[in-house]
Amino acid sequence: MLSGGDQDVPDGIGMTRLAWTRLPAADGEGAGPSTSGAADDELFSAAAVESLDYEVIENYAYREEQAQRSKFWVPYYIMLKWLFALLIGVGTGLAAIFINLAVENFSGWKYTATFAIIKHSYFVGFFVYTIFNLALVFSSVYIVTNFAPAAAGSGIPEIKGYLNGVDTHGILLFRTLVGKIFGSIGSVGGGLALGKEGPLVHTGACIASLLGQVTCGCAAGVAAAFRAPVGGVLFALEEVTSWWRSHLMWRVFFTSAIVAVVVRSAMNWCNSGKCGHFGAGGFIIWDISGGQENYSYQELFPMAIIGVIGGLLGALFNQLTLYITKWRRTYLHKKGKRVQIFEACLISLVTSTISFVLPLLRKCSPCPQLETNSGIECPHPPGTDGNFVNFYCSKDKEYNDLATIFFNTQDDAIRNLFSAKTFHEYSAQSLITFLVMFYSLAVVTFGTAVPAGQFVPGIMIGSTYGRLVGMFVVNGKLYKKLNIEEGTYALLGAASFLGGSMRMTVSLCVIMVEITNNLQLLPLIMLVLLISKAVGDFFNEGLYEVQARLRGIPLLDSRPKQVMRNMNAKDACKNQKVVCLPRVSRVVDIVSVLRTNKHNGFPVVDRGQNGESLVIGLILRSHLLVLLQAKVDFQNSPFPCGPGVLNRHNFSDFVKPASSKGKSIDDIHLTEDELGLYLDLAPFLNPSPYIVPEDMSLAKVYNLFRQLGLRHIFVVPRPSRVVGLITRKDLLLEEDGNTVMSELQSTSVRGLLNGKMLGGNAHLEHPLLDNLVIE
Amino acid sequence: MLSGGDQDVPDGIGMTRLAWTRLPAADGEGAGPSTSGAADDELFSAAAVESLDYEVIENYAYREEQAQRSKFWVPYYIMLKWLFALLIGVGTGLAAIFINLAVENFSGWKYTATFAIIKHSYFVGFFVYTIFNLALVFSSVYIVTNFAPAAAGSGIPEIKGYLNGVDTHGILLFRTLVGKIFGSIGSVGGGLALGKEGPLVHTGACIASLLGQVTCGCAAGVAAAFRAPVGGVLFALEEVTSWWRSHLMWRVFFTSAIVAVVVRSAMNWCNSGKCGHFGAGGFIIWDISGGQENYSYQELFPMAIIGVIGGLLGALFNQLTLYITKWRRTYLHKKGKRVQIFEACLISLVTSTISFVLPLLRKCSPCPQLETNSGIECPHPPGTDGNFVNFYCSKDKEYNDLATIFFNTQDDAIRNLFSAKTFHEYSAQSLITFLVMFYSLAVVTFGTAVPAGQFVPGIMIGSTYGRLVGMFVVNGKLYKKLNIEEGTYALLGAASFLGGSMRMTVSLCVIMVEITNNLQLLPLIMLVLLISKAVGDFFNEGLYEVQARLRGIPLLDSRPKQVMRNMNAKDACKNQKVVCLPRVSRVVDIVSVLRTNKHNGFPVVDRGQNGESLVIGLILRSHLLVLLQAKVDFQNSPFPCGPGVLNRHNFSDFVKPASSKGKSIDDIHLTEDELGLYLDLAPFLNPSPYIVPEDMSLAKVYNLFRQLGLRHIFVVPRPSRVVGLITRKDLLLEEDGNTVMSELQSTSVRGLLNGKMLGGNAHLEHPLLDNLVIE
Repeated sequence: MLSGGDQDVPDGIGMTRLAWTRLPAADGEGAGPSTSGAADDELFSAAAVESLDYEVIENYAYREEQAQRSKFWVPYYIMLKWLFALLIGVGTGLAAIFINLAVENFSGWKYTATFAIIKHSYFVGFFVYTIFNLALVFSSVYIVTNFAPAAAGSGIPEIKGYLNGVDTHGILLFRTLVGKIFGSIGSVGGGLALGKEGPLVHTGACIASLLGQVTCGCAAGVAAAFRAPVGGVLFALEEVTSWWRSHLMWRVFFTSAIVAVVVRSAMNWCNSGKCGHFGAGGFIIWDISGGQENYSYQELFPMAIIGVIGGLLGALFNQLTLYITKWRRTYLHKKGKRVQIFEACLISLVTSTISFVLPLLRKCSPCPQLETNSGIECPHPPGTDGNFVNFYCSKDKEYNDLATIFFNTQDDAIRNLFSAKTFHEYSAQSLITFLVMFYSLAVVTFGTAVPAGQFVPGIMIGSTYGRLVGMFVVNGKLYKKLNIEEGTYALLGAASFLGGSMRMTVSLCVIMVEITNNLQLLPLIMLVLLISKAVGDFFNEGLYEVQARLRGIPLLDSRPKQVMRNMNAKDACKNQKVVCLPRVSRVVDIVSVLRTNKHNGFPVVDRGQNGESLVIGLILRSHLLVLLQAKVDFQNSPFPCGPGVLNRHNFSDFVKPASSKGKSIDDIHLTEDELGLYLDLAPFLNPSPYIVPEDMSLAKVYNLFRQLGLRHIFVVPRPSRVVGLITRKDLLLEEDGNTVMSELQSTSVRGLLNGKMLGGNAHLEHPLLDNLVIE
Repeated sequence: MLSGGDQDVPDGIGMTRLAWTRLPAADGEGAGPSTSGAADDELFSAAAVESLDYEVIENYAYREEQAQRSKFWVPYYIMLKWLFALLIGVGTGLAAIFINLAVENFSGWKYTATFAIIKHSYFVGFFVYTIFNLALVFSSVYIVTNFAPAAAGSGIPEIKGYLNGVDTHGILLFRTLVGKIFGSIGSVGGGLALGKEGPLVHTGACIASLLGQVTCGCAAGVAAAFRAPVGGVLFALEEVTSWWRSHLMWRVFFTSAIVAVVVRSAMNWCNSGKCGHFGAGGFIIWDISGGQENYSYQELFPMAIIGVIGGLLGALFNQLTLYITKWRRTYLHKKGKRVQIFEACLISLVTSTISFVLPLLRKCSPCPQLETNSGIECPHPPGTDGNFVNFYCSKDKEYNDLATIFFNTQDDAIRNLFSAKTFHEYSAQSLITFLVMFYSLAVVTFGTAVPAGQFVPGIMIGSTYGRLVGMFVVNGKLYKKLNIEEGTYALLGAASFLGGSMRMTVSLCVIMVEITNNLQLLPLIMLVLLISKAVGDFFNEGLYEVQARLRGIPLLDSRPKQVMRNMNAKDACKNQKVVCLPRVSRVVDIVSVLRTNKHNGFPVVDRGQNGESLVIGLILRSHLLVLLQAKVDFQNSPFPCGPGVLNRHNFSDFVKPASSKGKSIDDIHLTEDELGLYLDLAPFLNPSPYIVPEDMSLAKVYNLFRQLGLRHIFVVPRPSRVVGLITRKDLLLEEDGNTVMSELQSTSVRGLLNGKMLGGNAHLEHPLLDNLVIE
């Protein structure tokens, strides 16, 4: 089971030395992320796994005792990883194209039909428009509530949690993937105030999870959603993973490049008109490279104001969505699927009504004088995309500015807001109306049981007030002589709102540059992001952190809390009762320990040569459950077992399937006879979990835990002596590495043949063989 | 001493709990990076420091026992950090502008003068050109050899080493900064086959080191060199640091943004002609946004070939420079400064001769028919930048294609190679001649005693063969109908060579996009980078790694070596004699230990309550030296000291100045009487260094060491019991964090008042107070 490799064994390199005498799966502390909330310590850092995993497979190869094969196994496995990265890229790219194709065609048909009908009757047009939206939203919410509840929302907080070490139930299942794809077509096509970008990240992660590389999938999702490959890599790096290595970056980068190629190819193919309404915009989603080329220092002030507004509105958005999600969870969604479906449909009706009726109430404006070679028509012909929508206007040369942004697909609305050379297209009144209404809709829509991203709504909101500020700047006395484009301010507004809400920096910056293809504005985007993030941070946490916390996903921050500096390791576990298992335990004792404790790992102790107590390792609950269910290792004697145990288990026995609940002790039924037998735990335990002395600062322990992605740390008494001191020099096995290796390997063989040779602990290092020597 | 904060205490959060009873500097294991090679274990991860440092300062504040002040100290210190980031950005930006201004003006004068003179006499022109170059190169090599030897080369391997934990002597001194700035003006202005980008990274790091944030400086350097702020952040992330946290990213990002603003402002100011030859090119260095907009799949094949060539030539470059640097170090540079100066001058003469004479030997070509509105003139007027240089041509409407790239500043040459709409400008013969000659010059120049970057030479080399491939594609039968630009292939060639030599991926990709302002080509750049890196990796390591290794900078890879899986912690230190110091040691014993051992840290042991031996912490050699020199802590009695010791030392006593050699035991002179006294080490030690059990896999130990940026790990016997088990849940002090804190704080106060209360180890936790209780 190849996907298992990824979801297994966070610090799985511990016992490789002894691997060939033991079950490799017993080495790692994890057998896949467990369901959140069931027990107290079952969480582990899946992220830490992403680059260690091939070592597990390699351990497995060791166990097979096929030294020859293992030589080729590692390169083969690395090849496989790259192949998977390729497949993830292709898969996510295709999924994105499919979603885009469906959404843009549904929207296209909807607006074409509506515009055709309103020539005759606005009322019938409204009816058709509403019904079309309602049908799509209903299909979405029906799919989600009935088949894939984990597909609701953006999925990013859950993925973030997964890569931080917490698995939300069902988040990466195949049915979630399917639900997400079809659900987001319905919800986005249905015109709700949400986007398809977050769901695409989740889609990418689901596809990647099938092949065991979730981080690659996240990057691929962003790359596909925004056609921003570099942005995707940075998003995965900055926002999603808790843990990162440079070779992982390299593979993530490859996946993103593949996505870019796949999407671009599809769009080239679509350019010939084979895909209906899809693909007309080109690879760059909202190209503003023809806009403002330069800026003056006087403009920095209004831009800073945009940053502040972004921070305030973003923080407010996070806070409001927090309240509304809490309310939903407490009152609404407890009442079952029907309420959820009704809620989504109601919001769809409200959204349709507002987006149709509000522009109707707005007076049309006369078309401005446009340069003939600007390529902009006013009003643009019906059935095409562009600025200056003619909606409920009495004269031919009039357009409705509110309809241009409200009664339009979100992509087109953003393109219209970002557009250059269209001064005074929008009235302040229309922009304010739209801002208030759309902001409210976005807040209300957030948390309904449909797949929903916050990127596009965020860009809509931000670009609206950005353009508003831009209008004031264009009209302002100070700035009259400058070459200012309102569209540039709209872009900065979009960046500021996303920065104020999601608190991303580098990745968001790169994404904004990649979706608008304007590198010149990079310093300005950086500026507004810095300000909006700082303002937002003053009030609350980022959107994903707030939502993750709300969903009970306990993310470990990268920095220990202040209070931890005043605590030590012992303080953190002082109310704990440590339950140790002896090396050879009675089955009935194990069962009773598992029943009465919720811990996920247990220290195993044994007697040393001089009869002193020694901690010989950590055994996982999940592995104990596997052993109890298999029963093949039960033995009559209370003495250590022989080596035959190695062949009784497959590696895959100990691998938990992705995102399943895992076994419970209650599922295992043992007879009275079986309960009286014994089980030797030595072959199955992790022989050297990380240890810390009891008076180590908790902040230091935290860093250890977080940086290495651990699940368990043993707190032990102060050591009585120091065997050695490891420094950088000891870890640099340079040119003479080979000699060291051969020397050590031979030592280890000698140690093996003569169980006593390595000193007092030799019997611990080779429990199975030691046993052979004794008997 | 504020800069000390950054270069101090890699895992300095260990003893915060006890900090108020101890000297905080004694907590961290490091007092600044030590000079490489002097002792065996003096290396530590400066990188790990970059975000922990404020905790040290805070410890200091604790020690001052000004609880009120410390409340404001942390925000104040964070503010200070951001202010420093701002200053680093401004400083690096200004340094970059200064270097650019000087280089471009020197080059401009040189070429203007030469072109003016060769109207009359080519021989006099050659003479002036050569002398001008020679004078600049001589000034550069003279400055470097006599004042700042550490300024030679690019400095990137050394900075990389510094952030990985190894300090090369003098690499971040102020004189190195000055030498680097003026040296690179000479070497780049002098027309050698090297660039100013690497030196700018080093310059940024030096400036940043003054303010204690080296990572920010690296990013600022790249941002300034390429006017690529995002590329700078990614460069620091991917290539330089060994260790990274998201809040560090945020500050690095800010610094880069500041650099971008500063550089852009200066260029705007220069646009009015106030800066001579500088600033004409605009913010984007080699803008090719007007080039090829699309590509067909048939082109992927020649592009893949470019990638393969890049990988091969890049790997060859790394290998040749390795040999030549080895040869230089072994034979040439041992002979002293004069040889180094002579060598650089000789190379300057050769470079001048080749770049002047070779174009002379080349026949001029007739000017092609150019579109009138393309803005390109043939030949371009003398004294201006542009394609189609008229050099030794008999007719007016002729140009010399070899002179266009060879007898030109590198920036202009690259611009000419990247240029679009200039089909058939270069003959294959000229390109091949240039490629061979310039490649050889770049290899030979590498390693001379002048500041030298490899970016621009790499771009030159790469774009030459890239353009060559592009020419074949344009002429090829298969591709005739396509819209192909040779300049695009030149860009891909540049990316491929850099990828093949430096093996960067994401950062290089972003830098290429930012310097050429063409996002459309991103997937293609990714493709050639992937191929060239893969091909290069097949042969050897990246340029910086090879050079770092050569210079004796032992970089720790992010992954443990294969052989470590077969070793355990004990194996790594089995030939070691562990020297322990008792808590209260005789001065003579300490001196003798320091004299006979080169270790940088020593375990300190004491007797527990029941007389058992206990390891109570780690004391650093450097701290022992400070104590021996200060002498104030010497005492007559062999019993633990009182608490008065706290006021005898300043925090700064224990901070080593940046990049100095540090004290040696031989510098300390003690009288016979003093040698007979005692020293209580307890207040000065790190009470909880990280420990690993002796049979833990060395690969696991390596990860711990590398991820946490440690200097020392204690290898201890297997523990006899487990006091507690720390899991994720124990580290999540959520809403009830405050209650936990107050509860624990009170415990700790009680523990303090009643030394015995915390159990058997209480006297270890509060050695000073315990002592009070006993006496």
